[in-house]
Amino acid sequence: MREKVERSKKTGLPPGSLIPVEEEQRKTPRISIFEYDESHCTERDITEIDYPSVLESKKINWINIDGLSDTRLFERIGSGFNIHSLTLEDILTIDQRPKMENHEDYLYIVLKMINWDDGTADLEVEQVSLLLLRDTVLSFQEKTGDVFDPLRERLRRGTGRTRKEEADYIVYSLMDAIVDNYFNMMDKLRQEIEQIEEEVIEDPETSTSVEIHKMRNQVAMLRRSIWPLREVLATILRSESELIRSHTLPYFRDLYDHTVKVIETLEMFRDNLAGLLDIYLSSVSNKMNEVMKVLTMISTVFIPLSFLAGLYGMNFRYMPELNHRMGYPVLLLVMALLVVFFLLFFKRKKWL
Amino acid sequence: MREKVERSKKTGLPPGSLIPVEEEQRKTPRISIFEYDESHCTERDITEIDYPSVLESKKINWINIDGLSDTRLFERIGSGFNIHSLTLEDILTIDQRPKMENHEDYLYIVLKMINWDDGTADLEVEQVSLLLLRDTVLSFQEKTGDVFDPLRERLRRGTGRTRKEEADYIVYSLMDAIVDNYFNMMDKLRQEIEQIEEEVIEDPETSTSVEIHKMRNQVAMLRRSIWPLREVLATILRSESELIRSHTLPYFRDLYDHTVKVIETLEMFRDNLAGLLDIYLSSVSNKMNEVMKVLTMISTVFIPLSFLAGLYGMNFRYMPELNHRMGYPVLLLVMALLVVFFLLFFKRKKWL
Amino acid sequence: MREKVERSKKTGLPPGSLIPVEEEQRKTPRISIFEYDESHCTERDITEIDYPSVLESKKINWINIDGLSDTRLFERIGSGFNIHSLTLEDILTIDQRPKMENHEDYLYIVLKMINWDDGTADLEVEQVSLLLLRDTVLSFQEKTGDVFDPLRERLRRGTGRTRKEEADYIVYSLMDAIVDNYFNMMDKLRQEIEQIEEEVIEDPETSTSVEIHKMRNQVAMLRRSIWPLREVLATILRSESELIRSHTLPYFRDLYDHTVKVIETLEMFRDNLAGLLDIYLSSVSNKMNEVMKVLTMISTVFIPLSFLAGLYGMNFRYMPELNHRMGYPVLLLVMALLVVFFLLFFKRKKWL
Amino acid sequence: MREKVERSKKTGLPPGSLIPVEEEQRKTPRISIFEYDESHCTERDITEIDYPSVLESKKINWINIDGLSDTRLFERIGSGFNIHSLTLEDILTIDQRPKMENHEDYLYIVLKMINWDDGTADLEVEQVSLLLLRDTVLSFQEKTGDVFDPLRERLRRGTGRTRKEEADYIVYSLMDAIVDNYFNMMDKLRQEIEQIEEEVIEDPETSTSVEIHKMRNQVAMLRRSIWPLREVLATILRSESELIRSHTLPYFRDLYDHTVKVIETLEMFRDNLAGLLDIYLSSVSNKMNEVMKVLTMISTVFIPLSFLAGLYGMNFRYMPELNHRMGYPVLLLVMALLVVFFLLFFKRKKWL
Amino acid sequence: MREKVERSKKTGLPPGSLIPVEEEQRKTPRISIFEYDESHCTERDITEIDYPSVLESKKINWINIDGLSDTRLFERIGSGFNIHSLTLEDILTIDQRPKMENHEDYLYIVLKMINWDDGTADLEVEQVSLLLLRDTVLSFQEKTGDVFDPLRERLRRGTGRTRKEEADYIVYSLMDAIVDNYFNMMDKLRQEIEQIEEEVIEDPETSTSVEIHKMRNQVAMLRRSIWPLREVLATILRSESELIRSHTLPYFRDLYDHTVKVIETLEMFRDNLAGLLDIYLSSVSNKMNEVMKVLTMISTVFIPLSFLAGLYGMNFRYMPELNHRMGYPVLLLVMALLVVFFLLFFKRKKWL
Repeated sequence: MREKVERSKKTGLPPGSLIPVEEEQRKTPRISIFEYDESHCTERDITEIDYPSVLESKKINWINIDGLSDTRLFERIGSGFNIHSLTLEDILTIDQRPKMENHEDYLYIVLKMINWDDGTADLEVEQVSLLLLRDTVLSFQEKTGDVFDPLRERLRRGTGRTRKEEADYIVYSLMDAIVDNYFNMMDKLRQEIEQIEEEVIEDPETSTSVEIHKMRNQVAMLRRSIWPLREVLATILRSESELIRSHTLPYFRDLYDHTVKVIETLEMFRDNLAGLLDIYLSSVSNKMNEVMKVLTMISTVFIPLSFLAGLYGMNFRYMPELNHRMGYPVLLLVMALLVVFFLLFFKRKKWL
Repeated sequence: MREKVERSKKTGLPPGSLIPVEEEQRKTPRISIFEYDESHCTERDITEIDYPSVLESKKINWINIDGLSDTRLFERIGSGFNIHSLTLEDILTIDQRPKMENHEDYLYIVLKMINWDDGTADLEVEQVSLLLLRDTVLSFQEKTGDVFDPLRERLRRGTGRTRKEEADYIVYSLMDAIVDNYFNMMDKLRQEIEQIEEEVIEDPETSTSVEIHKMRNQVAMLRRSIWPLREVLATILRSESELIRSHTLPYFRDLYDHTVKVIETLEMFRDNLAGLLDIYLSSVSNKMNEVMKVLTMISTVFIPLSFLAGLYGMNFRYMPELNHRMGYPVLLLVMALLVVFFLLFFKRKKWL
Repeated sequence: MREKVERSKKTGLPPGSLIPVEEEQRKTPRISIFEYDESHCTERDITEIDYPSVLESKKINWINIDGLSDTRLFERIGSGFNIHSLTLEDILTIDQRPKMENHEDYLYIVLKMINWDDGTADLEVEQVSLLLLRDTVLSFQEKTGDVFDPLRERLRRGTGRTRKEEADYIVYSLMDAIVDNYFNMMDKLRQEIEQIEEEVIEDPETSTSVEIHKMRNQVAMLRRSIWPLREVLATILRSESELIRSHTLPYFRDLYDHTVKVIETLEMFRDNLAGLLDIYLSSVSNKMNEVMKVLTMISTVFIPLSFLAGLYGMNFRYMPELNHRMGYPVLLLVMALLVVFFLLFFKRKKWL
Repeated sequence: MREKVERSKKTGLPPGSLIPVEEEQRKTPRISIFEYDESHCTERDITEIDYPSVLESKKINWINIDGLSDTRLFERIGSGFNIHSLTLEDILTIDQRPKMENHEDYLYIVLKMINWDDGTADLEVEQVSLLLLRDTVLSFQEKTGDVFDPLRERLRRGTGRTRKEEADYIVYSLMDAIVDNYFNMMDKLRQEIEQIEEEVIEDPETSTSVEIHKMRNQVAMLRRSIWPLREVLATILRSESELIRSHTLPYFRDLYDHTVKVIETLEMFRDNLAGLLDIYLSSVSNKMNEVMKVLTMISTVFIPLSFLAGLYGMNFRYMPELNHRMGYPVLLLVMALLVVFFLLFFKRKKWL
Repeated sequence: MREKVERSKKTGLPPGSLIPVEEEQRKTPRISIFEYDESHCTERDITEIDYPSVLESKKINWINIDGLSDTRLFERIGSGFNIHSLTLEDILTIDQRPKMENHEDYLYIVLKMINWDDGTADLEVEQVSLLLLRDTVLSFQEKTGDVFDPLRERLRRGTGRTRKEEADYIVYSLMDAIVDNYFNMMDKLRQEIEQIEEEVIEDPETSTSVEIHKMRNQVAMLRRSIWPLREVLATILRSESELIRSHTLPYFRDLYDHTVKVIETLEMFRDNLAGLLDIYLSSVSNKMNEVMKVLTMISTVFIPLSFLAGLYGMNFRYMPELNHRMGYPVLLLVMALLVVFFLLFFKRKKWL
């Protein structure tokens, strides 16, 4: 899970310059529009937004744009919907912190979608921008995903409240889809951490500390991506923008509670990983103790015995013991007693 | 002690969808109702709430529901008492953080009950939801427990102030029963921690660090469950809802003090466990020191002696000492002096 | 130094139930009363408070009660002075956090007295409760102590401002006596910590880490006992209760400064002890290094020499060196050179 | 990367004393002036500022001064533009914290430019001071750099909004150039940290911990240089100075977001480096484990074998085994079995 | 550097009791007075303050008192200038935290002067108290120092603004002299820390960890002495006392910035020392690794060789190799090959 930071290539350009997001540079963005009211819902894939028709529509319009490469499209959106050039620049700068800006005619919300990438077997952070205008919502993603599909389905079928509500409810539904998905990612992380936990307790290896480190970085990165969302939602709850009706606020408060829960889970992960590192370090020490005990016991038993054997291997002419008939058996007995003595000593030291 | 997190299975559903809590899915909820005023108290087990009669009753009604599986019951409660669908969803989502919501007609309070489960020999966290309406209190538990029994007894007997007070006092009494129970759990934890402390100081083993880690996670989990209750109570103390009379506020302030005390105890546990890990690590090092000293002393004494023995075990033809009558005894003397010298050296190093 | 926590035995009782403090259960409380104005001061030991005479007295009354066992006395105090039952319960619950409550007719202050118990050679925490009524002060201690004796002496002699001031000044004087005593306890702690410091630097032993741990717990416990007093005093300084005259506020501000100084000292102790643990751990490692060096030097010198001796102890028939006249002296020379070489090597490594 | 602290040489001088920055003492400052409005732009290098002409100019004036050595120039600027002597002293004191001061006639902003010095192959911190007067901006650098060149180019060409805006936009553009450059420096740091990370995981050496320590100090130093800028920008956003038009505020808000992003990156670096130290320490322990295992295995196998060999090297006259024909082959077999036994033992211990 | 804490001897005395500072008890205080306006300046050493003449003087009076032993002098100052007895007590209690008190007729400021004591080769903390009355400043030091000499010189010569300003500027100048001196002390600390840093990196010894610990305590102590000054200055900047003219506030703001800079430097020192301890600990481990490698290599090479030698030192009658002509040279060759093998093995393990 690597964060994309390409900000440095903008150095020296005037503010508000629109630079396409590199990886997507060659792809045409995919634009889809939902136009609905309580009784009807039209869904179309389009190549260009028809600004006057959207602005004058009596229905709610939700325009979703996948792909951030076509800077000219963004310039047209800017003039079509009267969006500040800094906002457009922010939508195209994919290392934004989640934030909410209250402009005169629109609300701008940035947040992070977390997905599991089966290709790299890793988490992937994607930036999602939302623009809430009167009766119109624009959503921008880096690439096409399926997190918003259940919402699309609800719009098509007209189940639930979605079609009965106004544009702010679409913003809520999009954010809710993203936050709900956080819980899935938390489950994935939980499984990985439990696996590391088992490894640390059962059979820690040299690579385990690196795994813990990488997981800590990953948790820290998710925390950086999600933490500011809490403040974004608190700002929405406090804001007095008329674009968000007081009727919708309980839903955003619910979202706020969910976000706090996710953050709390990440903090639990962080503390748990710190604890696992402590266990890992203590288990490395314990393993060394184990190794040292074996060495010490072998040495303690055999070095004195070897000395005794060496003693009677000396070639002095006058060593009375050597000529005694019982010399050898007595020495063997002494050696056996020494071994017993050392074994008792180790027993008392609890090394055995 | 595992936290139940099942939130991820809700991904993609519209907000306010009621999903039964899985483990309880097949059980019928147990509903009991207390209807009382200062002079009378009726207690019944019922299968369905008679909404009009409750709403029009001149007495105080406390309805306790054990079991969160019957979603249709919750739908009827929602329409019968005019409860927001998000509140109903929260009651059924058992990984809520403790919180308090001030709705137009009712207060919604979530908190965590901590119980000792004799089966798993572990702490168990259960979610309790309280709804305070005018003259009516609804309480929701995951399963039937006995923490509220003393309150039931007081209601039946009419002792204490309980029957003289209004519905907010029932809410206070329920929360007080839960918080009082926290102190019991703190005592259990204290005993377990003292046991670990003894183990660390007397005879630390490899598994001790894992025990400390598990206890730290347990304390952290309790802290997450109880910490937000402090804020809940502060909100109640500040709130100007007319559902809570100023007359009852001193009781909630008392509850606030108790909760702070519990949190402080948990923080003491946390710090103590961190300290125990430090001691554990230092004792592992000390044990290794002990092992190394034995190895070093044995080696230091016997390796030079063995060398001397080896020296006179050589087969050179011309080694004058070997033929000397006093060769052997003199060598033995030299060896004895060496041993004395090393013993003095170890003494001076304080290794003995 | 053990904190007394007996809260759990109250579980299930209605709030406001008065339970005597166990250890004191059988003793009769000792009640003394000072009745004074600028010109006169009467001091009596009594067995029962004469409520009407105290309430109607034109003088200042300070009633000190040692012993928290006689619950009926507390019930009479409750009705005699119109004290809320929760306040009485708090006075009898000796694990309160320091706090200040502003009731209609009185201020209730709880704080902790720290004493040195010569019997257990340990610090002892005792709870002191103060009730400030109009012209009357009640103080409650667990057992009779001598911290308030200088104040009594000043009242008797009429020196200083005490007799010229009103009841709030008695409250200040009592708190001042307790805070002044904190400084004595800080001196005791300082001495103990300096002793540990010396031990860590001069001659750390296995038990030293346990001593550091115990001292850390002790400092943490004092911090928990004293820290909230800061907030209590800040509340008094901000409060607009007419029971505390603005004229007395500078004295409480002085007390606030003293309390901050004590807390700062405790934090200094805490940081110092954390540092001592670091030194301890590094000294354990250094000691092991020391041991390892001895082992390594002995082994490094003698193992090669032993090998050489062993080599010429072999029984091959054709080993020309063995028969050479100079074989033995040359080998001895080689061995001596090896020893010199290794000693130089150790010198260069700074192991010697 | 060393911070320049020369403040101590000012001790004893009256406040407001202007002392030249030492390193630059002998160089003449380089003064350049841009005078522009939407249609024209004049650029000149000058040796002395013509104060009346600047003050009365109808155009925007940006005066850039490289070099802080000519104290008399600063005195003339002080009287020419009516700048407080303490402000002038601050401009010349190059270890200022970033700050913003709202004076009556001007805003004074100090911030830090971070550059890569190819000479020392290290980061270099330079202080930049900005003075925003009505229609005039003064910028002060320690030495000539190229960070502002793109802005100069935009002024010359008249592209972008710069020439259309007023003096506050120049201040924004200068700060934006500096903050944009932070992102470049973050990239450099990121590369260095990744290199250390690789080293720690692949092949940690003794010097690695020193490298981590130095990098941590460097990150801490950058954090000290950049962190206060956040507060500076927050102050600008809150300030009601009429020198900054509300029209320009979105640009400063954008800058604020960028600064927060840089700070967040630095905090990520800090946490990552702390984690790397943990891995380093655990890898040192693991390496020692590795060494000890080799020692223990060699010793465990050969010390008992040597004992056996020594045993049959003894010179007792009566050792029946020695004369047995199969004595030697049987012993060799026993030794081989011992080796197999130990190898299996090591296998079970997972040392092999 | 030891903090003087003698507070405990005051226990039991009434508040406001004046106790002389012990060390100075026998010395007569040295009182000097500067009386000046823009055109004149008189400087005198006096033994008693002439209160009426000072109070009625049309000029500014600065009275400096060195020595805190003469309690009667303080009583006379108390009545002469109408100073609260608690303020006098604070001046004489030399372990005050820096603070500022806004009394009706005067401001009371306490702060800490840090000096280098050549005698003990250590830093020394001294308490300075300032009283700002209308047109009069009193300053109190424990002993005579030279930090204020440049200010005296400026007053005598009439250079700078000092003689043109009013009494609040004297207070600023005194505080400025003290804070300027902090920068000198920071330089001293910096040098000592750099020395420790070098020692840790080049050649860590057992005593190094104690040195780091002592330096950390020293830095912590300075932090405690200086940190509250920040709050003091913030209070002055916010205060609306008419004793400090708005004209002087920029100077105090400058002082505030300097204090923040000093605190930041101390925090940098603290972090750096924490990092040094980490390096120290890792270097101790590395050294042990080094020792272990030598031991392991020597043992690994020679223990198997010794075994081979022992094998052929056995006295079995039937050992065919012993009688073979090439037995000895072949064995020597085998041994040489073993040595080569082990050296290659160590090379691959990077132990050589």
